[in-house]
Amino acid sequence: MSLSAVLRSGMVGKGRQPVNYDTALDTALGRLHSEGRYRTFIDIERRRGNFPHAVWKKPDGTEQGITVWCGNDYLGMGQHPVVLSAMHEALEATGAGSGGTRNISGTTVYHKRLEAELSDLHGKEAALVFTSAYIANDATLSTLPLLFPGLIIYSDELNHASMIEGIRRNGGSKRIFKHNDLKDLRAKLAADDPAAPKLIAFESVYSMDGDFGPIAEIVALAEEFGALTYLDEVHAVGMYGPRGGGVAEKLGLMDRIDIINGTLGKAYGVMGGYIAASAKMCDAVRSYAPGFIFTTSIPPAVAAGAAASVRHLKTDQSLRDLHQERAKVLKLRLKGMGLPIIDHGSHIVPVIVGDPVHTKKISDMLLTEFGIYVQPINYPTVPRGTERLRFTPSPVHDPRSMDALVHAMDALWSHCALNRAEMSA
Amino acid sequence: MSLSAVLRSGMVGKGRQPVNYDTALDTALGRLHSEGRYRTFIDIERRRGNFPHAVWKKPDGTEQGITVWCGNDYLGMGQHPVVLSAMHEALEATGAGSGGTRNISGTTVYHKRLEAELSDLHGKEAALVFTSAYIANDATLSTLPLLFPGLIIYSDELNHASMIEGIRRNGGSKRIFKHNDLKDLRAKLAADDPAAPKLIAFESVYSMDGDFGPIAEIVALAEEFGALTYLDEVHAVGMYGPRGGGVAEKLGLMDRIDIINGTLGKAYGVMGGYIAASAKMCDAVRSYAPGFIFTTSIPPAVAAGAAASVRHLKTDQSLRDLHQERAKVLKLRLKGMGLPIIDHGSHIVPVIVGDPVHTKKISDMLLTEFGIYVQPINYPTVPRGTERLRFTPSPVHDPRSMDALVHAMDALWSHCALNRAEMSA
Ligand SMILES: Cc1ncc(COP(=O)(O)O)c(C=O)c1O
Ligand SMILES: Cc1ncc(COP(=O)(O)O)c(C=O)c1O
Repeated sequence: MSLSAVLRSGMVGKGRQPVNYDTALDTALGRLHSEGRYRTFIDIERRRGNFPHAVWKKPDGTEQGITVWCGNDYLGMGQHPVVLSAMHEALEATGAGSGGTRNISGTTVYHKRLEAELSDLHGKEAALVFTSAYIANDATLSTLPLLFPGLIIYSDELNHASMIEGIRRNGGSKRIFKHNDLKDLRAKLAADDPAAPKLIAFESVYSMDGDFGPIAEIVALAEEFGALTYLDEVHAVGMYGPRGGGVAEKLGLMDRIDIINGTLGKAYGVMGGYIAASAKMCDAVRSYAPGFIFTTSIPPAVAAGAAASVRHLKTDQSLRDLHQERAKVLKLRLKGMGLPIIDHGSHIVPVIVGDPVHTKKISDMLLTEFGIYVQPINYPTVPRGTERLRFTPSPVHDPRSMDALVHAMDALWSHCALNRAEMSA
Repeated sequence: MSLSAVLRSGMVGKGRQPVNYDTALDTALGRLHSEGRYRTFIDIERRRGNFPHAVWKKPDGTEQGITVWCGNDYLGMGQHPVVLSAMHEALEATGAGSGGTRNISGTTVYHKRLEAELSDLHGKEAALVFTSAYIANDATLSTLPLLFPGLIIYSDELNHASMIEGIRRNGGSKRIFKHNDLKDLRAKLAADDPAAPKLIAFESVYSMDGDFGPIAEIVALAEEFGALTYLDEVHAVGMYGPRGGGVAEKLGLMDRIDIINGTLGKAYGVMGGYIAASAKMCDAVRSYAPGFIFTTSIPPAVAAGAAASVRHLKTDQSLRDLHQERAKVLKLRLKGMGLPIIDHGSHIVPVIVGDPVHTKKISDMLLTEFGIYVQPINYPTVPRGTERLRFTPSPVHDPRSMDALVHAMDALWSHCALNRAEMSA
């Protein structure tokens, strides 16, 4: 989705009068209010050892116990003892921040260990840690056209905002192909100069619908047309593959992907992002990407916690199994009630409401009446008409919390007289 | 500086042959090597309670004790007990990561408290925390043209890479004015349509020379021409002003700046970045900036540590005084030896070497022979011919460490037969 397009439509035009900056801000904010998609942040504090339970601090200052059903700490690693003790230890040993950019005093043994853990995870020669997967996508994708002059980037139309921003940044050539549409991708590859450098950018799990990218087929196309591949595994690392290497690991395809992008802030439970690739590729991105070079590196304690999490999930298959099981059960139960859920077999459970105002209303009622926190997902994060609640069951969501959720949804769905199953896909 | 321009010059062209991606990477990396500006990261571990001392892990696996002289943890807050205990406590209470984007379960009471601390610091209605000051600059400056259609951004030519990236991103109108040149800025403002929305973007302390931006004069120009002002105080917050609000606070000008940008990763010793501005401005950026919306929020423990640091430095003037004193003494001593330092009265102490190979050589000798770590600063971070060592004395650099540094520089300067004072400014 293009936020700029959204904004340009209907904005105040270039005036002839003296500039009124306040009015422009009112206009921008007013549009969100009038479309029912102004976002209100919910202030929470999760309780370590008691995930997914948390305390909601209401705007009036009072508090209420809640259960978080929309987090992306997919495996509950944010409270895992191996992660927390690694962080405490690093804080004790080396202090709070890194004190510098990676080049100027901000490369620590913790960063190096984390990168070694990640390159091992993906079977690549090297890995490069960024402050987030957002900036890893943005910085890498905007730097590649500088490394490969004339590069054409083929981008799935549902790619994440961070990839879109990176691809757009330097005005390089791009082709947007229809979501997961191999015929469209092939046609676009075939239409371009065979000698032009090419890159196909896509995701392994699309986080709003929970569907999978056709990795094997895209890799085959890339090889046929001599294109590089760039795979965002942000919603898969830690959760798929025998060592948590992602869907590409599960399918035995990691070695055929040139650049793998992942996050340390979702299933790994901490913060930060990375790419894993050949030593040369990482070295070039490291040397040329402003988003990597000109920013303070992540705190050593964050790097230590993330490394401990990655290491732990290389062997803890039981957590992955439990995660998949919980998702399966929730989907089964919601489907059984006839609710319109999207099910592509991943760990993400979207329930379509189809209207921003309804979605917000149900979300508000779940929170205040049932202590169930699930944020409404609206345009432009998802297409209009597909506004939804997106549930993320995890190993820490025990059967009792799941019962509570299912009963609340049943009660509310009847109360609101929403159609059952009408919009399910 | 434009990295893209650097890269485009002399890159492999669009070939007619089948694409050889490896060769392109070799070319990009080879240019850095041949110009003597390929960057080698030094792996270190600072020792909490013992800053600025650290252990250098050499490529061969052995270790050496060193003193860090190039960090940006300007006040040593990264080892301050108030910061560390706040971080330990938050880890215990709420776990490692936030588990979500700010909108989707990633707004915690820790984030809200930090934002309250920051808006108070700058006397603004609101503040907005990002994962870094890099992304705060990039995301905010690229979103403003969407909020104010037709916006023209006037940008100091020495602005930081993150501001340049933000300003370039959406292809909005921009005018680059000569560094700190009010005549040039006035001429450019006067040449444009008086009715066009305008913004002047600049810094309070330019980190490579350590010189100050003319805040009062630029604010006056902005008011005359009806322009907004955007001030990067990344190298000033915590360190200048009676409460650490930066140079604008010191000069009593905070209320005349529309948007103040700062970091939590330098003087505050942790990680993260922010803007402080009117409630409406923050609300609009919060609602429209992809770089704010689509990324995991900073870990609660990081937010807690940063908030404790900001709070502490609102009252600890002694640390600021000691910082300035140490910088003054170091400059005096290096000047006394006739070394070519740049002195604009700030806390940053650059010693010009003027050649990338020499600079690297001196830096290497300081490290291996004297255990003094100062990273060489080369093009494109600074203009060619002004390659330098950039020292950052701090309250934790005691007189003994300073003696050691001064003697080492004296010995090396003689050894290398470098000119004294020739290039000082
Ligand atoms: C597909 C995808 N890529 C990248 C990101 C960014 O990851 P991070 O939170 O580490 O910035 C996200 C979400 O935040 C995402 O959904
Ligand atoms: C002037 C300036 N602005 C912004 C930044 C980015 O700050 P951060 O390290 O928080 O990303 C830096 C350096 O890193 C800087 O020097």
